[in-house]
Amino acid sequence: MTKSPFPLSKVYGLLEPGPVVMLSTARKGRPNIMTLSWHTMLEFEPPLVGCVVSNRNYSFNILKTTRECVINIPTVELAEKVVKCGNVSGRDTDKFASLGLTPIAASCVQAPLIDECYANLECKVADTRLVNKYNFFVLEVLKAWFDSSITDPRTIHHLGEGVFKVDGETIKLPSHMK
Amino acid sequence: MTKSPFPLSKVYGLLEPGPVVMLSTARKGRPNIMTLSWHTMLEFEPPLVGCVVSNRNYSFNILKTTRECVINIPTVELAEKVVKCGNVSGRDTDKFASLGLTPIAASCVQAPLIDECYANLECKVADTRLVNKYNFFVLEVLKAWFDSSITDPRTIHHLGEGVFKVDGETIKLPSHMK
Repeated sequence: MTKSPFPLSKVYGLLEPGPVVMLSTARKGRPNIMTLSWHTMLEFEPPLVGCVVSNRNYSFNILKTTRECVINIPTVELAEKVVKCGNVSGRDTDKFASLGLTPIAASCVQAPLIDECYANLECKVADTRLVNKYNFFVLEVLKAWFDSSITDPRTIHHLGEGVFKVDGETIKLPSHMK
Repeated sequence: MTKSPFPLSKVYGLLEPGPVVMLSTARKGRPNIMTLSWHTMLEFEPPLVGCVVSNRNYSFNILKTTRECVINIPTVELAEKVVKCGNVSGRDTDKFASLGLTPIAASCVQAPLIDECYANLECKVADTRLVNKYNFFVLEVLKAWFDSSITDPRTIHHLGEGVFKVDGETIKLPSHMK
């Protein structure tokens, strides 16, 4: 793995732009993955992330029980696998094997990192108050990884029904915002 | 205004890709705007959106008191105004006037639509359970507007410190996801 630890104070810059992510979990040594776009930053540091994991998803009970996951951020090169991942259930399929993705041991959680994703955020569940009503989990990022050989990661943004916007040009404007 | 009502069932496709948005509010007839990126869809229909409005923002108390706002989605053409909006406070400034933006009366809420934004979502606050701890408001979209003369809106995605990714190419992959 060519990844290095990434500062927790900079994690917001990875998730704030709204990329599609792949959430990996594991229970009894069996890993699973789901695709999701319904996430938001909630706090800078320690980084808190809110995300919706529907109770129709196989990952829902795993996340609720184990209280651990990894948020993996794919680039456009993985788009086809991202969509396939969202169209099958981990109930019947070993998604790592069927999608040809590589699980790598994380350092703080049982859930594996997806090696092919350029950034990985090891998380624990920090608040479940909105789980019953909205399937909304508050996650705390414990450890972050980043592949620094990827200089301009182009992430993808779901518009619905398999249509995605791919990151285009980067612009920089004078700002004193964080 | 060249906008038409937009189906509530399709609102998720506007916010799910994670664009920077401008939140407009109004109190006692005085409108205000803030820029934010920390939002997520929570439910398809009626559309529920969660978003963080920091209690350091002037808009926080207005939103908490009036329980109404409009989520306005700008395209890259407005990027400079979006950043300026995020770098001044409505405490001292009439942002509509200083940014040269046009407030338009909404149909369900007191807060105005920003005419220059290609889509506008009139919202009421639906749940405040996570406001004290995370400044996280659950909003219900009551009415949506869309400028159908904009065929390929290029939204912007904040990476931090005034750096943005602009929407690039659109790709479509076979999927049975919503």
